[in-house]
Amino acid sequence: MKLVLASKSPRRSELLAGVGYDFSILPAQFDESSVSLDDPKRGVEEIARGKAQACFGALADTHDTVVLAADTIVVCDGEVLLKPKDPAEAKEMLKKLSGNTHRVMTATAIISEKGTTSFVEETSVCFFELTDEEIDDYIATGEPLDKAGAYGVQGLGCYLVKKIEGDYFNVVGLPIAPVMRYLKEAGVLPRKGV
Amino acid sequence: MKLVLASKSPRRSELLAGVGYDFSILPAQFDESSVSLDDPKRGVEEIARGKAQACFGALADTHDTVVLAADTIVVCDGEVLLKPKDPAEAKEMLKKLSGNTHRVMTATAIISEKGTTSFVEETSVCFFELTDEEIDDYIATGEPLDKAGAYGVQGLGCYLVKKIEGDYFNVVGLPIAPVMRYLKEAGVLPRKGV
Repeated sequence: MKLVLASKSPRRSELLAGVGYDFSILPAQFDESSVSLDDPKRGVEEIARGKAQACFGALADTHDTVVLAADTIVVCDGEVLLKPKDPAEAKEMLKKLSGNTHRVMTATAIISEKGTTSFVEETSVCFFELTDEEIDDYIATGEPLDKAGAYGVQGLGCYLVKKIEGDYFNVVGLPIAPVMRYLKEAGVLPRKGV
Repeated sequence: MKLVLASKSPRRSELLAGVGYDFSILPAQFDESSVSLDDPKRGVEEIARGKAQACFGALADTHDTVVLAADTIVVCDGEVLLKPKDPAEAKEMLKKLSGNTHRVMTATAIISEKGTTSFVEETSVCFFELTDEEIDDYIATGEPLDKAGAYGVQGLGCYLVKKIEGDYFNVVGLPIAPVMRYLKEAGVLPRKGV
């Protein structure tokens, strides 16, 4: 079985490669803004399924192929935080997250000729109380701008996080342990063999 | 202030380097087996302090220098799991951890001419129920042998972990967020500036 990743996120690629999968990358052409996030969990799952289906539909040959897509959102005090559009919005988001606990939801969709499977993994993340200076310094690193909720837990953003509850890699952008289990069921195995 | 890491763990080096510290490495000459782990938390802290002091004592010049040492243990059902001495012991350990929740304790000690500071960070880790085949496959990768509790959460061992509660990097071997805060207090700053 061949694996196709429908995402241009370098973090998702690194996670899959790190546990030994061979795969190609074909980012999905899917309009995320068409999906309502009023119910965040349902919405993020719809986006992941939409991405997976768009990518699968764009394949020249779907035989023996599994497409994996994912989408990550941050939910804080009932509000969905996506990628900030500029440093000012990043600052607003980080001020909301400071000293607070939020939820990270990553939806994963796996599609092959046999059908589509999807699930949403949720992790709680508790931030340290941050000073304005700490927030400004972090924004100045440039790291927040392409990330939901304006931080990356695997980068310099580790400085912001006091503790988590749930799957760590889900916060990075792909809950790799359950993903490996679903891929195994779909007949996709990594090279290194766990 | 110059930073010296009193550990030969490549994971600790990577974590420190990843957030932008410049440092040299001088593994401590310290006999860990001399320390009782009957009280695991107290014991692991004593080891980290012992390592830091041994390294600091071996420096030609301690002026403007901060030494960082750490030690990680796994505690499961009241039993301390260190590094397995062979694949058979790794298998025993992974069978104990399977379907169970254990605690990872990392003690960190920071020493300079001003004195020694140390703290123990604790994270709960819940494993999936593992089959014998999954355990054997994981041991065959060679990853478990140099790691407390016979797994590495940041490598292929991510497949084993269902969820955690606490600091993720503490399970990797160094709770980088609190370490950064302590180093800042000690006057050691990373290049990238958070």
